[in-house]
Amino acid sequence: MKAVIYEGNGTMKEKNVDLPILENNELLLKVQACGICSSDLRTLLYGSRSVVPPVVLGHEIAGEIVDKTLRGTEYNLGQRVIVSPAIGCGRCIFCRTGQQNHCNDVRKIASHYNGGFAEYIKIPAQAIYGGNINIIPKNIDYLEASLSEPLACVINGQENLNIGPDDTVAVIGAGPLGLLHAEAARLSGAKKILLINRSSKRLKLAESFHYDAYIDLSAEDGIKAVNDMTDGKGANVVIVTVSSAQAVEMGVNMASHMGRVCLFSGFPYDKSKNKLDLNIVHYRQITLYGVFSSAPRHNEAALNLITDGKINIKKIITHIVSLSKIDSGFDIVRAHDGLKVIVVPDMEDLQEDIKNYSSAKIIV
Amino acid sequence: MKAVIYEGNGTMKEKNVDLPILENNELLLKVQACGICSSDLRTLLYGSRSVVPPVVLGHEIAGEIVDKTLRGTEYNLGQRVIVSPAIGCGRCIFCRTGQQNHCNDVRKIASHYNGGFAEYIKIPAQAIYGGNINIIPKNIDYLEASLSEPLACVINGQENLNIGPDDTVAVIGAGPLGLLHAEAARLSGAKKILLINRSSKRLKLAESFHYDAYIDLSAEDGIKAVNDMTDGKGANVVIVTVSSAQAVEMGVNMASHMGRVCLFSGFPYDKSKNKLDLNIVHYRQITLYGVFSSAPRHNEAALNLITDGKINIKKIITHIVSLSKIDSGFDIVRAHDGLKVIVVPDMEDLQEDIKNYSSAKIIV
Amino acid sequence: MKAVIYEGNGTMKEKNVDLPILENNELLLKVQACGICSSDLRTLLYGSRSVVPPVVLGHEIAGEIVDKTLRGTEYNLGQRVIVSPAIGCGRCIFCRTGQQNHCNDVRKIASHYNGGFAEYIKIPAQAIYGGNINIIPKNIDYLEASLSEPLACVINGQENLNIGPDDTVAVIGAGPLGLLHAEAARLSGAKKILLINRSSKRLKLAESFHYDAYIDLSAEDGIKAVNDMTDGKGANVVIVTVSSAQAVEMGVNMASHMGRVCLFSGFPYDKSKNKLDLNIVHYRQITLYGVFSSAPRHNEAALNLITDGKINIKKIITHIVSLSKIDSGFDIVRAHDGLKVIVVPDMEDLQEDIKNYSSAKIIV
Amino acid sequence: MKAVIYEGNGTMKEKNVDLPILENNELLLKVQACGICSSDLRTLLYGSRSVVPPVVLGHEIAGEIVDKTLRGTEYNLGQRVIVSPAIGCGRCIFCRTGQQNHCNDVRKIASHYNGGFAEYIKIPAQAIYGGNINIIPKNIDYLEASLSEPLACVINGQENLNIGPDDTVAVIGAGPLGLLHAEAARLSGAKKILLINRSSKRLKLAESFHYDAYIDLSAEDGIKAVNDMTDGKGANVVIVTVSSAQAVEMGVNMASHMGRVCLFSGFPYDKSKNKLDLNIVHYRQITLYGVFSSAPRHNEAALNLITDGKINIKKIITHIVSLSKIDSGFDIVRAHDGLKVIVVPDMEDLQEDIKNYSSAKIIV
Ligand SMILES: NC(=O)c1ccc[n+]([C@@H]2O[C@H](COP(=O)([O-])OP(=O)(O)OC[C@H]3O[C@@H](n4cnc5c(N)ncnc54)[C@H](OP(=O)(O)O)[C@@H]3O)[C@@H](O)[C@H]2O)c1
Ligand SMILES: NC(=O)c1ccc[n+]([C@@H]2O[C@H](COP(=O)([O-])OP(=O)(O)OC[C@H]3O[C@@H](n4cnc5c(N)ncnc54)[C@H](OP(=O)(O)O)[C@@H]3O)[C@@H](O)[C@H]2O)c1
Ligand SMILES: NC(=O)c1ccc[n+]([C@@H]2O[C@H](COP(=O)([O-])OP(=O)(O)OC[C@H]3O[C@@H](n4cnc5c(N)ncnc54)[C@H](OP(=O)(O)O)[C@@H]3O)[C@@H](O)[C@H]2O)c1
Ligand SMILES: NC(=O)c1ccc[n+]([C@@H]2O[C@H](COP(=O)([O-])OP(=O)(O)OC[C@H]3O[C@@H](n4cnc5c(N)ncnc54)[C@H](OP(=O)(O)O)[C@@H]3O)[C@@H](O)[C@H]2O)c1
Ligand SMILES: [Zn+2]
Ligand SMILES: [Zn+2]
Ligand SMILES: [Zn+2]
Ligand SMILES: [Zn+2]
Repeated sequence: MKAVIYEGNGTMKEKNVDLPILENNELLLKVQACGICSSDLRTLLYGSRSVVPPVVLGHEIAGEIVDKTLRGTEYNLGQRVIVSPAIGCGRCIFCRTGQQNHCNDVRKIASHYNGGFAEYIKIPAQAIYGGNINIIPKNIDYLEASLSEPLACVINGQENLNIGPDDTVAVIGAGPLGLLHAEAARLSGAKKILLINRSSKRLKLAESFHYDAYIDLSAEDGIKAVNDMTDGKGANVVIVTVSSAQAVEMGVNMASHMGRVCLFSGFPYDKSKNKLDLNIVHYRQITLYGVFSSAPRHNEAALNLITDGKINIKKIITHIVSLSKIDSGFDIVRAHDGLKVIVVPDMEDLQEDIKNYSSAKIIV
Repeated sequence: MKAVIYEGNGTMKEKNVDLPILENNELLLKVQACGICSSDLRTLLYGSRSVVPPVVLGHEIAGEIVDKTLRGTEYNLGQRVIVSPAIGCGRCIFCRTGQQNHCNDVRKIASHYNGGFAEYIKIPAQAIYGGNINIIPKNIDYLEASLSEPLACVINGQENLNIGPDDTVAVIGAGPLGLLHAEAARLSGAKKILLINRSSKRLKLAESFHYDAYIDLSAEDGIKAVNDMTDGKGANVVIVTVSSAQAVEMGVNMASHMGRVCLFSGFPYDKSKNKLDLNIVHYRQITLYGVFSSAPRHNEAALNLITDGKINIKKIITHIVSLSKIDSGFDIVRAHDGLKVIVVPDMEDLQEDIKNYSSAKIIV
Repeated sequence: MKAVIYEGNGTMKEKNVDLPILENNELLLKVQACGICSSDLRTLLYGSRSVVPPVVLGHEIAGEIVDKTLRGTEYNLGQRVIVSPAIGCGRCIFCRTGQQNHCNDVRKIASHYNGGFAEYIKIPAQAIYGGNINIIPKNIDYLEASLSEPLACVINGQENLNIGPDDTVAVIGAGPLGLLHAEAARLSGAKKILLINRSSKRLKLAESFHYDAYIDLSAEDGIKAVNDMTDGKGANVVIVTVSSAQAVEMGVNMASHMGRVCLFSGFPYDKSKNKLDLNIVHYRQITLYGVFSSAPRHNEAALNLITDGKINIKKIITHIVSLSKIDSGFDIVRAHDGLKVIVVPDMEDLQEDIKNYSSAKIIV
Repeated sequence: MKAVIYEGNGTMKEKNVDLPILENNELLLKVQACGICSSDLRTLLYGSRSVVPPVVLGHEIAGEIVDKTLRGTEYNLGQRVIVSPAIGCGRCIFCRTGQQNHCNDVRKIASHYNGGFAEYIKIPAQAIYGGNINIIPKNIDYLEASLSEPLACVINGQENLNIGPDDTVAVIGAGPLGLLHAEAARLSGAKKILLINRSSKRLKLAESFHYDAYIDLSAEDGIKAVNDMTDGKGANVVIVTVSSAQAVEMGVNMASHMGRVCLFSGFPYDKSKNKLDLNIVHYRQITLYGVFSSAPRHNEAALNLITDGKINIKKIITHIVSLSKIDSGFDIVRAHDGLKVIVVPDMEDLQEDIKNYSSAKIIV
């Protein structure tokens, strides 16, 4: 089968490799859609502590069950499924409370195990017992379904923010994750949503989402803009979806008293020590929520949101690329030339679905 | 009357001033006990944005009602009361939810109004309508009661930490506030309490509180010590009660996955921008709680804890000083020569109570 | 002035009475809109323990400040305001946490004080200090604003229900309060909203709200219908807005495991002991939330929702009646001939606003 | 091996049966201690919908791993373990959030599978993957460890009650579960604990636990007593641990405004429809929490509490009986002649441990 192997040192190559061989209680998926995450790009560019090459990247996976050595469960050949990539031990306090992404002994797809930038992927037994596989309902397609993974991270990220109608929510970063956050905040009834970005390109792309304000930092001061829109009180909730120390500082600064700031982004690991005005956090009684990854229950919740049509997901998919054009996909992600880029290994199989993405660019 | 006036530039002087004149609906208190907070010292040494001299400092106030222009309430001459120092507008969202300390238009005793380092203090009408005055129950004395204010801050600080029997709690700083935090955490059923300090003096003083570990940073590495005591998992809750960037960094570092870190201390205002490893916060999904000051409901809750004997408060009072010896009191606070220092303007009046503090040092 | 006096024993009469005389720190409002609550009708029909006649009923009040003896606050002549009717003592634990409706010494408008079915109403000082008066923003009218009170009760009622996108919400009762609940649940992102009523009339009226199901108990079995729509699992949230023991029983029965049931309605006081299957509550681990009335913070939140256009409030107002036709108003409420009925004492003053209610019936 | 078989119709008989044969991935435990729950007695006396005879009862199980067909996990021969009896599917929303006791497809030990009143018990594979097996730490014995199961139910029951230092907690029922609740409430820092029982015998037994009040309903009125102790305000938290409609009614009646009432007991299934004054629930804004059973995470938390010595567990064990004397054990449970009765199949094996229960009665 074809697989794109990340080899470290900024290189990634499509190769022909053997089909994975199933051990006991495993599944084989034919990958049908796998989104490119900006963290895949970060790994490619800067490396990552938790990813040891060679390995196949890609953790936003939707696929079809084509083989199994598992008996007596609900999973069957031909089923369409998505994968929650963090596999827990099943017994630690994190696994027991539905936060497998923080399991004491977590093992991840696209890190410990090969990921989805390939024609096929093997699902280990522990992922099945752990509930990491969710079945895609009939009315949504593989492409939408593959967005469950990033949306699951957003759900995990907003879980403790308790957004409601009293909250003005500032989202910093108008990338795909910023938009998913804005959509989720709207669904929670947020009073106002203010989308903030470094430049105008993506703010334009997001206009059709009809948020309450689009703040272009190249043209205006973010803190002033937010204060102006909140009677000088600041935003109740700030969600930082950019990997920038400056943005975190700005985010804390534009938060109101008793505001909640979500630190959704990580940093290249040699750039993670950043200056923060701790007196603002202290005197305004701000809460700063670090959040990372997601668990099977978030994955299911995300899939349900998409299935229920609560989030306009199709609009976020702007590019669909074949496996052999994955480099172009990564280039688009890097250039912020669109929003979400999805790798589709077998375009023919999905041709009917792809027709529904008339405004997306298809690269084969 | 005698009052100690903070004049800015590091000076503070006892003076004879006129008794405050009551306007409508006000109370006059005879100050019977007023604790020295380490933030009083910080203001004296470095100034404070919110304190404009000349003003009387001292916000941990217990006193007797000796005059009033207020009709028809439950407050009467001769009553013993404590004062919650942050006075709210009564109408903003913070006042309405019991967080007057974050009122959009907060006015504070010992900042906007004169504080308790004086023989008498005037209580403005708004404080009375706002519920800032709590009546001291019979079975506790003025000295204990004056500790309600710092304990109220601790209660505010722990409100969202949700400490329970699964939580190992690391308290950084063994000053009076660190100990109040440790006591409150124990009351919430914490699994283990680890008290951490820069040097051994105060850890020794705290031995009779019987915490689970006393970690002296001059002798051992804090992060290692905490990890050793938690199977390498880190503390679930870390409370930073020291005004040190290093301590915050260490605190975040010793927190477990999904750990909660309380930023209880502020910084001198030119030293508040500090480096923090944001990747730890992000990848471990840590929540960082800035907390500051307290509201009337915390004040009442603190008074109740003390009244119910849930917290061994007397042990924390190590020095009792007269108004004219307040400088010695500040010196002790600065040198960390004891724990809590209480100013008692009229020692004679309290002589029976003071007898119950046999191990405290009395300075007249 | 004209006022409608409730005299007990099922009688209520319009009379000419003296204008209220203001004592210190009070306000006089010209009542511009006052909704009829189904509990007003219940009081008229069956009496109420907390309402001692003679008294003016009507607690959903919007009016204009026309006189004041209050100095130095933000309230001024000519301002348009609404009133939160439960006035707290300001010091008990309920007042301190924003639940004045449960104040140990609560005093209520339309019960301890005269209410809004009159040309003018006096607002006591305690209501002003307590934050019970909220200023109406420019972009909404008195009629909409008067709905803040019932909506505030709904907000209080949903506060602990934590409705979100995983929740199928069944609302029992399609009266004005049922619809406000359904609207609020939708705003919180509920997965599905199922509106349930005893008969079809009001379900028809509610069709334009586009809920996910309309269940007419005269035509189908409620529990079966809800189970069918939830794969047999039951509704996660059930809100009972009808004063019927049967409905509570049905509500508990249609709740899922770990479901949340809101008991929003009270009962005539001689009919409040009802059979409930406690094993369902116990074995399914259901939580039953009694909720009653609202506090100033809910009132403000409701006003904000209406101002922000988050809830389509105008559609709920189906009848506007003059003070002298209040009996007709009560008849409509009793007959369930529409949804919300608003009493407007001075129709001429509001004639411009009333034009925006083209589908409402005006009775003068 | 010997096993006590529940045969329905109020009969239970010790028989010789074959050792269970392990299928794939299972464990065999030698039962070392198994408590008798009052619900075992209820099943014996009145039957139970979820228990289909013939089956071995007993779900408070501690034992030793003596055989296994499971590879590659942390479980090994010779280990001492406890069992969380509710086995979940691993994939439903309840399993995913750590509430396997409400799994859509839950299967229970001592109901779907044989329980612990036998010499040996087989643990199904699903229980192992589901985390239902917890390893007993060195410093506690099998008898204490077996109390983890009821304590886990108590922890589940108090999870949402949020007991803290402001709360006066009334516990109705002074049986073993009532005492575990009282202990857990104390650990959460409850202001006062009021223990209430129908008769004096068990209140006497509980005197050494030093609660704040012991209310004997045969001598005084419960509601009056609670009101007297709370300035007429009622208890903030009421926990009903008796299977009596009257007790639930009393419990709701003695709760304060905004009080929380825990419905911990179930009812014989033909006696579960009971009269309740719903107006009290509604007007006081009381929350009624039905709670039932527990999940693996509660089981672990309970084991930790016992291990950490946070709960004085040994005092609650008043009787230790051999398997062949199980009838006497049931008689004691029925007569309320002590507190917890533990069945120990192999007394000899535990003889050293049993020595530590000098005040317990041993029946062989
Ligand atoms: N917590 C989790 O579990 C989780 C999961 C997935 C992703 N993430 C993280 O979420 C972040 C966002 O993902 P993404 O795919 O949306 O990223 P992306 O495509 O790289 O988009 C980032 C956006 O942020 C803008 N930006 C960059 N620096 C900025 C600054 N200082 N101020 C304002 N805007 C700035 C960029 O604007 P320009 O277009 O002008 O460059 C861009 O539109 C990434 O850091 C990713 O690692 C976290
Ligand atoms: N949030 C609020 O509402 C609130 C209210 C009151 C007070 N506070 C703040 O709480 C803090 C503590 O108050 P306090 O009265 O207890 O203070 P304190 O008497 O100054 O005690 C501070 C303690 O911290 C120790 N310490 C200093 N630097 C340290 C470091 N890097 N690592 C470990 N320990 C270190 C000191 O040890 P040595 O004895 O070795 O010097 C001392 O024992 C102050 O910053 C105060 O401003 C906040
Ligand atoms: N908690 C609070 O603070 C608060 C505040 C305000 C109001 N409330 C209470 O909320 C309730 C609803 O107020 P509302 O003004 O909307 O009342 P409403 O106009 O009387 O409407 C009640 C609706 O319930 C329906 N109904 C009656 N019995 C039913 C049953 N057994 N099953 C299903 N539907 C049934 C009626 O249907 P038909 O049209 O077929 O008769 C009617 O449409 C009242 O009890 C009121 O006292 C509570
Ligand atoms: N939620 C769960 O997961 C769970 C788990 C385990 C047990 N439970 C339930 O918890 C309950 C308590 O268990 P247990 O083992 O402690 O029961 P128990 O041994 O039967 O004790 C019940 C106690 O309640 C007293 N009592 C009976 N009726 C009373 C009344 N009307 N008012 C006041 N006190 C009354 C009895 O007093 P006398 O001594 O005077 O008779 C007895 O001391 C049982 O119903 C059990 O089914 C629930
Ligand atoms: Zn784990
Ligand atoms: Zn305020
Ligand atoms: Zn009150
Ligand atoms: Zn399940």
